[in-house]
Parts: sequence; structure tokens; C-alpha cells
Amino acid sequence: MSRTIISLLILLLPLQSVQAKGTVFLKDYLDKCENSEADAMPAIRAALDCCARTRAGELVLPRGVINIRPEHAYEHLEAISNNSQSLKRVAFLMKGMKDFRITGDGTTLMFNGFMSPFSLEGCKGIRISGIDIDYARPFVSEGRILSAGKGWMELSFSESFPVEIRDGLAVFLDKDGVEYPYCNLLEFDTRKKEVAYGVHDWWLWNNVLPAKKVGENAYRFEREDFDGMTPGNTMVFGAAQRLHPAFTLWECENFCLEDVNLYNAGGMGVIAQCCRNVTLNRVRVVPTPGSDHIVSISADATHFVNCKGYIRMTDCEFRNQKDDATNIHGWYMAVDSVLCRRSALLRWRNGAQCGIRFLKKGMRLEFADPATLTTYAHLRVRKVEYLNSEYALVKFREHIPARVRPMDVVAEDDSYPDVLISGCYIGNNRARGLLIGSRGKVVIEKNTFHTPGSAILFEGDGRFWYEQSGVRDVLIRDNLFLNCMYGPWGRACISVGTGLADKEASRYHSNIVVEGNVFRGFDNRIVNIYSVDGFSFRNNTIEMTSDYPEKGSASERFVMEHCDNTIIEQ
Amino acid sequence: MSRTIISLLILLLPLQSVQAKGTVFLKDYLDKCENSEADAMPAIRAALDCCARTRAGELVLPRGVINIRPEHAYEHLEAISNNSQSLKRVAFLMKGMKDFRITGDGTTLMFNGFMSPFSLEGCKGIRISGIDIDYARPFVSEGRILSAGKGWMELSFSESFPVEIRDGLAVFLDKDGVEYPYCNLLEFDTRKKEVAYGVHDWWLWNNVLPAKKVGENAYRFEREDFDGMTPGNTMVFGAAQRLHPAFTLWECENFCLEDVNLYNAGGMGVIAQCCRNVTLNRVRVVPTPGSDHIVSISADATHFVNCKGYIRMTDCEFRNQKDDATNIHGWYMAVDSVLCRRSALLRWRNGAQCGIRFLKKGMRLEFADPATLTTYAHLRVRKVEYLNSEYALVKFREHIPARVRPMDVVAEDDSYPDVLISGCYIGNNRARGLLIGSRGKVVIEKNTFHTPGSAILFEGDGRFWYEQSGVRDVLIRDNLFLNCMYGPWGRACISVGTGLADKEASRYHSNIVVEGNVFRGFDNRIVNIYSVDGFSFRNNTIEMTSDYPEKGSASERFVMEHCDNTIIEQ
Repeated sequence: MSRTIISLLILLLPLQSVQAKGTVFLKDYLDKCENSEADAMPAIRAALDCCARTRAGELVLPRGVINIRPEHAYEHLEAISNNSQSLKRVAFLMKGMKDFRITGDGTTLMFNGFMSPFSLEGCKGIRISGIDIDYARPFVSEGRILSAGKGWMELSFSESFPVEIRDGLAVFLDKDGVEYPYCNLLEFDTRKKEVAYGVHDWWLWNNVLPAKKVGENAYRFEREDFDGMTPGNTMVFGAAQRLHPAFTLWECENFCLEDVNLYNAGGMGVIAQCCRNVTLNRVRVVPTPGSDHIVSISADATHFVNCKGYIRMTDCEFRNQKDDATNIHGWYMAVDSVLCRRSALLRWRNGAQCGIRFLKKGMRLEFADPATLTTYAHLRVRKVEYLNSEYALVKFREHIPARVRPMDVVAEDDSYPDVLISGCYIGNNRARGLLIGSRGKVVIEKNTFHTPGSAILFEGDGRFWYEQSGVRDVLIRDNLFLNCMYGPWGRACISVGTGLADKEASRYHSNIVVEGNVFRGFDNRIVNIYSVDGFSFRNNTIEMTSDYPEKGSASERFVMEHCDNTIIEQ
Repeated sequence: MSRTIISLLILLLPLQSVQAKGTVFLKDYLDKCENSEADAMPAIRAALDCCARTRAGELVLPRGVINIRPEHAYEHLEAISNNSQSLKRVAFLMKGMKDFRITGDGTTLMFNGFMSPFSLEGCKGIRISGIDIDYARPFVSEGRILSAGKGWMELSFSESFPVEIRDGLAVFLDKDGVEYPYCNLLEFDTRKKEVAYGVHDWWLWNNVLPAKKVGENAYRFEREDFDGMTPGNTMVFGAAQRLHPAFTLWECENFCLEDVNLYNAGGMGVIAQCCRNVTLNRVRVVPTPGSDHIVSISADATHFVNCKGYIRMTDCEFRNQKDDATNIHGWYMAVDSVLCRRSALLRWRNGAQCGIRFLKKGMRLEFADPATLTTYAHLRVRKVEYLNSEYALVKFREHIPARVRPMDVVAEDDSYPDVLISGCYIGNNRARGLLIGSRGKVVIEKNTFHTPGSAILFEGDGRFWYEQSGVRDVLIRDNLFLNCMYGPWGRACISVGTGLADKEASRYHSNIVVEGNVFRGFDNRIVNIYSVDGFSFRNNTIEMTSDYPEKGSASERFVMEHCDNTIIEQ
């Protein structure tokens, strides 16, 4: 008991004497807890509370591994776009902090169980650097394929991924017996440490899979459509929910992450919503070094929604994560009904957006036709009342145009972030590389792509994911596209994947320039776009390789449908 | 669209002119919505908002069926003891209302999907009467047993319970395709409309069960330990969570429910927490009349925690619900650690209590030994800080005694409700009848019990469920115990089931008088108690029947261990 007492006693400590903009050392708090090696959460909580109350300028984290457990963590109900809404345990919960740094010294924050590392709301001028984020037990589970045939496979699991058969179904656990639910399977090439060539996701309706133990460390999984698995490869059981992103930002300004390694997370790496000026410099998303893990974090490496100002990602590495490297977009709500001349009921149509309350008085909203995503009107918000997580009753300053129909989509149309993505490595992950949906100035340069799907995708739609896009000014230059398209996610290295019912009538995207890049690959599909006004492809080098089995040469290198003002110079 | 528009336009209506303590008629609001037959929620919301803002005295509901859907319902994060914590959609969300009635006229509130009918917080003087609560689709699923053998059974399902096989597992749905998860099975006798004789729960580890469709309406379920099912009986798939009690009360005073029928609920019927003076008069929990349902609501009919004043249940019927008729108890938190002389960290140890924040400044807490539940100290709360749903940091006015150890239990010990349960029918349900854990005066009279487990149970424990009990004054008189004990839940008709590690050292319960009752049953087990000081059994009639296969005669009629001052007069 004494260890626990001393550990928690820190919660009662009076404020440390810290000058305004002073420095707080987590080590001082850790040293006061005998038990802080097992759980630094009470020390972090005390130190962070002290920083907030004394308006300290910096929290310094000591070198070494810091274990953090959820028991004494903060708690916060969070609706996070493209992740899962829930009441979350959070280690570093920061609200309204200003001009504050968290500085590690190669510090590893080792999280245990279901908790979020960082969640920031309404903060300004925050810089976090010099830390690694890892979890004692990843949110995905990985098995080695021992043998496989039509309708079955047999897997073994390392100590990292304890498994049990309960009522004939495979259940993954951690060492404390906490369950890690899964909802899909994806095969990775163990040797190449990337998504295996030509595979696809296996989705599980019920978040379980029947299994039998057939040997000391051998489990047999049967499903009618199983086929084509390669012994030696790694089967990854994807996390059923995205509960715990590493960094969750809401309405923050001037946020910088530098020299940070993300080895694991129970959701996205960095998800910024309604933020202005976000910098990621030397942020590396990679599997835990020295581990047998093939996957890094369990969803997109980064994701930005309704952001402003700028988004800069420089010299980063987005590798082996379980979804795209980034997705930059806005939110579309759908019109549920027009109630009177100035009032309408808006509705979230994508469940992973429910709970987001971004509408504000004075905001300029665009109304768009969901078939073409063409903006046909702008109105300003006078008042918002949220009925619940799903519906918002909005009164406008102006009359609602007569042409507004249910299912028309509505998004903020005030300003968009300028985006710079430079010097990054992007690849080996599930799905695509960069999903670019900002209407600001976008520069993508000097990156290396090795994505199994499209390296750069212009998506957005108002019928499935309800993500606002529609680029206006994109420069893609001096990048290396290296053997992309070895998986099923996309139609070309650079492509449009917008969900338009009427492609012909739409010119949703415009002014995309692709120049000075090297396309070195086994797959012939370089560009596949539609509904674009202004596309230039010039001064690029295309080199074919035989590094993977050829599959794309029968397809055209350049596909452009319903586009205007296109230039292709090979 | 016009119907929807008109339906929702009501959300914009200006306040109806209502005098203070005036009457609002829901019909007026329903009449303004063309679409209110499909969903009365916008009308209810507008009417209820009007009542709250104008301090109306009564909301009158019209005769007939009112359909209510979750889309436009209120939303509320609720931690409900012995139910499931979640962000809930609520139809009648009432906060801080006073001296207000909701009066139906045989009104059926027909709910659709995952939503809670009534949730009241901090209300005083509320009376709800004249309504039936039903759901278009129950939260349990029921199948008729076609045939069964060792390791298997085949079921058919009526239109009420749509089922699909997905990836080899049975999934239950409603007509809109919404999934109804399940976590256990229990067999009911279709003809007798009660839990089948001698059965027990089948628990499902993974909330799913493999199944195959083997005929037009025939589904085969296999599990190694399946055995003894009776063709013709009804297999009930119990709801995986208790998300939506019919009436959730928090810190309410003088609440009365009268002439209310509860046919379905997605949790308990009435759950009152920290309430004072609750009356249930002619509340009937029964399966939907005219339906093929064998189960009424999906958990306890009623449940009272940390209540004060009085609890009165008169002329009620608690039939066929999926758990006990009532459970009246307090909450035990456990000591996690003592931080200093006046501060301790307390922890919820039962996950279904997490999120409850009942500790208040000035509250008198008892400290008890979890092995005997003997109170050894009292302290008053000076300050409470909740770290999260699980932990509370409490500062006390007095010094914490040196003997306090982690896992010692702590409960409020200020006052307890007097309980009257009179003229009720209690039976045919899963498990037990009345779980009595108030230290106030308790009278149980003129009821009929036909419970498959104990009719009256004195439970409470500080190691499993963490429910404070310890009765002081119980009178059980003039009841009929009719063929109880046909299931596995309990050791006698009247019994103690307290979770004590040291029964010999404890006299947790005291002063129980059983007189003037009729025990008419096939099972010999009438009384089984321990750790009681003061138990009188006198002037009762015991009649043996052969209505069920005999199983209890080998057991003793009266078992009393570690009791003082007992009188048995047969």
C-alpha cells in the first residue's frame, strides 16, 4: 500500500512555486512518487495542473521511458471527426493553455490500455517536441501466417498479441486481460514490411472471427471466401474502433509538433479540427523499433478538418499506419429540411462526424448540389441550436434560396489552409498517401511515395463520407513516386476519387500542376482524373520497373474524363 | 418534404401562451404536425420546452398510440447505476421541474429504437399517470424452440424478431436494419409464460452465437454445453446492454408514477438514484398485451439506490421482466488508498456504478470491513474531486482512522428510505423478487410471489456488486408465496445472500419478522439466512404442492447460520 499512497499523495501537493512562464520539470513530480515507474499519471496530472494554474511556459520531460496508465487519467467526452465518439481517458488534457511547450529529451511515453495521449482544446502557441509515443499493447493484433488454403488459414501469435478462443471465437487480449476488439483483416508482407502485393481488406460483420486452436501456437481461421494468403506473411486484425488518437486538437492555434515518434495509437496520429496554423516537423509514424510489429498506428497518420491558416508537414515519415498518411478536408452536413424562410435543420450523415459542433454565429456556409458538389449559394449563420449529436437547427441571416432541397450539402466556406508537405516519406501503409481537400494553396514537394493505393488523391463527396474538398491551387513537384499502386486503393498514382453522381457537369477541382517528379514504378497508371478544370503534367520522368508483378500496363497511363484545360507533356 | 417541414416547423413555434401552473395539451402540438403519427418527438419537445419555460402545471397526453423516434430526441450523457453509461437519446428529458404532472388517458407511448422514454434530474413533485410504455421492437429477441439435443437447438423467429446470419453468426435486427446485440440466453415456458422449470442462463463471451439457417424459418445453434432445452419453449436472447431504462430518476423528490404499464424497456423499468419519496401505484410491468412476447422489460422492474424518505410500491405487477422485481440498496465505493490524515482516494469497483457522482460536501460516510460489512467508523466529507468516472479524491473533516485499509468499503450513512411494498404480484421473471437493502423501516405485505428464485432476498456486499444493505427493521406479513424456487436463483424463498467472507463475525442484517404468510409451494426451502440478529417466523401457513417436479425436499426448510435471537414457530 505504501507505494500507492506515496504515488497518489502527489495529487494533494500544493502548487510548486513557479514564476509566470517558468519551467516545470516532470522529474520533480516523478521523484516524489515511489510508484511512478509503474504509472506516471498522478505525477503528470499534478505537473500539468501546476503548469496550467501557474501559466508556466514549459513542462520538461526527463529522458527514458515513462509508463502511463488510464486509472488516474483525466476524462473527457470527445466527438472526434473520422474517429470514434466516446468518454475518453486522456493523459495530457490541455484546455485553453497558451504559449506553452512540452519538451522531451528522447522521452518515451509508454501508454497502457485504452487512453489518449494528448487532447488539446482552445490552446494557442503549443509546441511539443522530443517525445516518442508508444503503447505496451498495440490496438491492432498481428499473426504470422503458418499455412493457408481456400477457405482457411492458420496463424501463430507472438507474446505481443495474446489470444484466447472463447465460445469458438478468437479474442485478443493484453496481459491484464483487457480485450482488443477487431473488425477487419489485412495481410502485410513480413519481409518487405508493407501491405502485401495485391491483397484487400477482409471486413468482419460481427467484429469476431471463429477460430480453433490446432497446435501449441497455431490457430485455424475458416471463412468461405478466404483465399490467396501467403505463408510467412503477417495478418493484421484491425482495431474495431478509433477511440484514442495520439494527438487530438480542437480549435487550437499555432500548434507545433517536432521530433516526435508515433509508434502506436488507438486511432489517428494527429487529428486537428478547426485549428489554425499547424506544423508537424520531423514527426515519424513508424512501427515500434526493435519490436515484431508490422503496423505503426491503427488509422490515418494525420487528418485535418476545417482548418485555417496553414498546415505544414516537413521531413516527416508516415509509414506502416493502418490508413492514409493524411486527409485534409472540410465537413459537409446535409440539409434535412427547410423549416421556414430563414431556418433549416441540418444533419450529419456520416456517423463518424456526429457530435461535432463547429457551426458558429457569423459563419459563412456554402450550399452545394450533392451530385456535382457545385456551390450554388452562400448564407451566414445567425443562430445555431443543436438538437443532439446528429441534428442542428440553424437560423440564417438571409433567406434560404428556393432551390435548397433535402440532402443538399452545407459546409463552412470562409477560408482554407495553405498546405505544405515537403521532404516526407509516405508508404507501406494501408490505402492511400495524401488526400488533399483544401481550397487554399497546396504545395507537395520533395516527398517519396511508396503507397499501395493512390499516392495523391483528390476526394471529397456529399453522399458517402460527406467530406468537403474541391482544390483550387495544387503544385506537386520534385517528388519520387516509387512503385506505388501495389494494392487495391485507387485508380492511379495521382487520381481523383470524388463521389460525384454527375461527373460531366462538375469541375469540382481546379488548377493542379504536376511537374519535375519521378514516377518510378511497375504500374502504368500515373494519372486518373475527372471533373477537373486545369491540370498540367510536365517535365516529369517516368521509369518502369519490374520490382512487382506487373498489373497496370493494360490500363492507360493518363485517364482524364470531363476535364478542361489539361496539359500532358511527357 | 412538406410533411417533414411541417413536422419540424414546430421546433420554431413561439411560446404558447400558458399561465403559470397552466395546462399544456400535447394534442395541440401533434395537430400542428402532419407527420406526427410517424414521429411525435418534435411535438413532445416543443410541448415539454413550453411546459418548462412557462412553468406549466400539467402536460396532458391524448388517448391513442403516439409514435416516438430517436432522431430529434434530446441527448444526455448518463451514468445510471446497474445500467449502462452512455450518451443517450431521451424523449422526456426533464431537469429541475417542479410540481408538474404528465397525464395520459390510456396513452401508449410507442418508442422506436435506441432511446430512453423518461429521464428526470433534480425534479420535485412530479406525477406521471395514465400511460403505457412500449417499443416497436423489444430489446430482447425471442425464438421458439423447434427441436433440441445435446449440443444444439433449432429455433424459429416471429416477425417481431428479424434475424440474419452474417459471417456464420446470428444477428438480430429491427425493420430498419438496426442491430439488437445480445449477451445471454434464457429459456421460458411458453405455455406457462414464465421462466422454464430448472433452467439457467447461458452466457455468451462474445455477444454472438454461431448459427445456420436450416429451413424456411429454422435456425440451428450449436454450442458444446447446450442441453436440456424443451421444444415448444421460448428461448430469449437477452439484451447485451442496459442502455435505456423507462424511467431514470436522479436527485428527484416526491415522484409518483400511477396507472402506468411498462411493456418494454431497454434497461430497468424505474431506476431511482438519490431520490426522496418515490411512489409507484398500479405500475404494471407485463409483456405487451396481444403480442407474442414472453418477456416484458429487459432488466429489473424497479431499482432504488441511495434513496431517502420513503419508497412505496402498491398494487403493482412485476411480471416476466428479465431480472429482479426490485433492488433497494446503497452504494459502496472502495478505499483505493489513504493519501494523508484527512484525504483518501475512493474507487468504484463495480463497472456499472462508474460515473455516479453522489458524494457531497457534508455527507456522513461509513467505513466498513468488506469481510463482515461491519461499520467501524464515520467521517464527514469536506471536499470531493472526481478524477474521472472511477476515482474520487475525498477530503474529510476528521482524521481517517489508522485501521482503514485499501478495499475497505465506504457508503453514505445519513438516512435510509422507509419501504412499503403492498398488494403487488411479483413473478414469472428471471431471478429473484425483492432485494431489500434499506436500513429504514420496511413493510412487505399482501403480495403474491411466484419467483423462480428467492422471493425476498437480503443481499448487499462489498466485494462483488458493492451494494450497501444491512436491514434493521423488516416486516413480511400476509403474503402468498406461490410455488417459488422453480429456477436456480437463490437458496430459499426468504434468504440472505450477502457476500461476506466472514459470516460468523457479522450480524449484517437485523430484526426481520415473517408472520401471517402463506407458503404454498412444491419446494421445501422456506428460509435460508445467515449473519442475522433477530429473525422471527410465526403464524405462517406452509402448504406443499405437486405443481412442479419436486427438487427441494431434501433440503432443510429452515437454515439459519451464525444468527442470534431467532424464533421459528411453525
